[in-house]
Amino acid sequence: MSGNFHIRRLALIGTGLIGGSLSLALKRAGRVDEVIGAGRNRKTLKRAYELGIVDRFETDLAQAVVGADVVFVAVPVAAMESVFATIAGHLTPEALLTDGGSVKRAVIDAAYRALGKSIEQFVPGHPIAGTEQSGPDAAFADLYANHRVLLTPLPENPPALVEKATQLWQAVGAHVEYMEAAHHDHVLAATSHLPHVIAYALVNSLGRLAERKEIFRYAAGGFRDISRIASSDAVMWRDICLSNREELLAMIDLFREGLDEIETALRDKDGEQLQARFANAKAIRDGLYREANNN
Amino acid sequence: MSGNFHIRRLALIGTGLIGGSLSLALKRAGRVDEVIGAGRNRKTLKRAYELGIVDRFETDLAQAVVGADVVFVAVPVAAMESVFATIAGHLTPEALLTDGGSVKRAVIDAAYRALGKSIEQFVPGHPIAGTEQSGPDAAFADLYANHRVLLTPLPENPPALVEKATQLWQAVGAHVEYMEAAHHDHVLAATSHLPHVIAYALVNSLGRLAERKEIFRYAAGGFRDISRIASSDAVMWRDICLSNREELLAMIDLFREGLDEIETALRDKDGEQLQARFANAKAIRDGLYREANNN
Repeated sequence: MSGNFHIRRLALIGTGLIGGSLSLALKRAGRVDEVIGAGRNRKTLKRAYELGIVDRFETDLAQAVVGADVVFVAVPVAAMESVFATIAGHLTPEALLTDGGSVKRAVIDAAYRALGKSIEQFVPGHPIAGTEQSGPDAAFADLYANHRVLLTPLPENPPALVEKATQLWQAVGAHVEYMEAAHHDHVLAATSHLPHVIAYALVNSLGRLAERKEIFRYAAGGFRDISRIASSDAVMWRDICLSNREELLAMIDLFREGLDEIETALRDKDGEQLQARFANAKAIRDGLYREANNN
Repeated sequence: MSGNFHIRRLALIGTGLIGGSLSLALKRAGRVDEVIGAGRNRKTLKRAYELGIVDRFETDLAQAVVGADVVFVAVPVAAMESVFATIAGHLTPEALLTDGGSVKRAVIDAAYRALGKSIEQFVPGHPIAGTEQSGPDAAFADLYANHRVLLTPLPENPPALVEKATQLWQAVGAHVEYMEAAHHDHVLAATSHLPHVIAYALVNSLGRLAERKEIFRYAAGGFRDISRIASSDAVMWRDICLSNREELLAMIDLFREGLDEIETALRDKDGEQLQARFANAKAIRDGLYREANNN
């Protein structure tokens, strides 16, 4: 239970949508006394302060984690190793170090390289929540309510620390589950990373048409929804894709097979096959997906 | 202006989402005295009657259009020619005949073949609105409010009849624009038909994974949105794709180029190019698209 869970000092490294929303949710729930924001961009930190996401801020990451009982790292995945290296020698011994990275193997590898003995304090995590927006202004306290958070604990983690990470997320209304890191990266390549690549590719493709202004003018709900995530932050997604490259390439191959099937049926004017492929997708989307998500 | 627009008798051929929503909207606005539903499936017609979409119904299409001042055909595109052939000799001379088909050239070709002299009464149209649901139960009066309707008038249409079609849609809150049929099919292949093929292909691909139940369980908002239209009716979309085959095949090729670019960058571990492609898509989605749609 997370009923008594309380943080004296939270160090938030990265104060954008993911980090900022965690802070706002913990503050609203009265679960944290003080939040220290840290990062490299003073302007972003200042904005997070103005928005009430952090109570004070530091551009010196090592300084920011001193005395913190929870450290949450929410920076683009490729920036994590340098963050870990900077803070490694400054963590309070009992502190929980966790993250919000969308890939887990690459982050864990970086943590092993950079954290040294402090690796036992690092409980890797991934909240399955977000929007296409980014930055402190995009943060909101309800982001994690009723969303899933996947923790991929390390063998080195003391169980009490995994429990602390669990309570952290439960305190903001999330449902915590545990998963092996490689399996996490496989599943997320399918449900999140591939869809983002498809959305980016679709918008780039149509943007190449001479009449693109008109095209977007006559786009209906289907296009709006399918392209929404193409507004996601480019650096964050560059890092995610490169960090989960093998799995993502395999998923792109799988998607091409699905696209080939439909294209071949269309080329062959094979209405029966076309209908069968569409009906198959509809059955899966209506059935399995709704069943799993109650919507 | 549509202020005085009034229909004595509307014949609705096809009483699903598209036809049913038009009827509900006209009824709510007090713009129609009587709605006759027509179609081949008595069960669907009976349901439309129970839902208040139609005041009575006929399975004899020719009978249904007798005495109607507006006839709206909202059946899958491949079924339109047979509908036109059946009703051709039974239309009231002054009646407006229009449709809701998602492709326009194929429907117009069918109309020329099947309608004979009545071709002048046919003003082709396409409301850019819909959901992934279908059937009478999916219909709702607000479907067309503030949505665009594209009319692709024929040279044979008397201007007064095009005006009547315009007022029909304005009466339910839609914004009417005019477009050449071939251009319509090109634009819609990009913004609607291609996104549907992509959504179907994506869901089929992931449905092939052994761990598909789990995959859908951990799907977040991005996947939910990108896959929503894969729940669309399979017969309707088979017809749309086959009826706009050349344009759609060209758009699939275009999309493949966009996907290839990203895949190549990922394969080459070219972070700079990957970020450039994502940033390009984000700029288009944030800029052009929002500009055109005010959202």
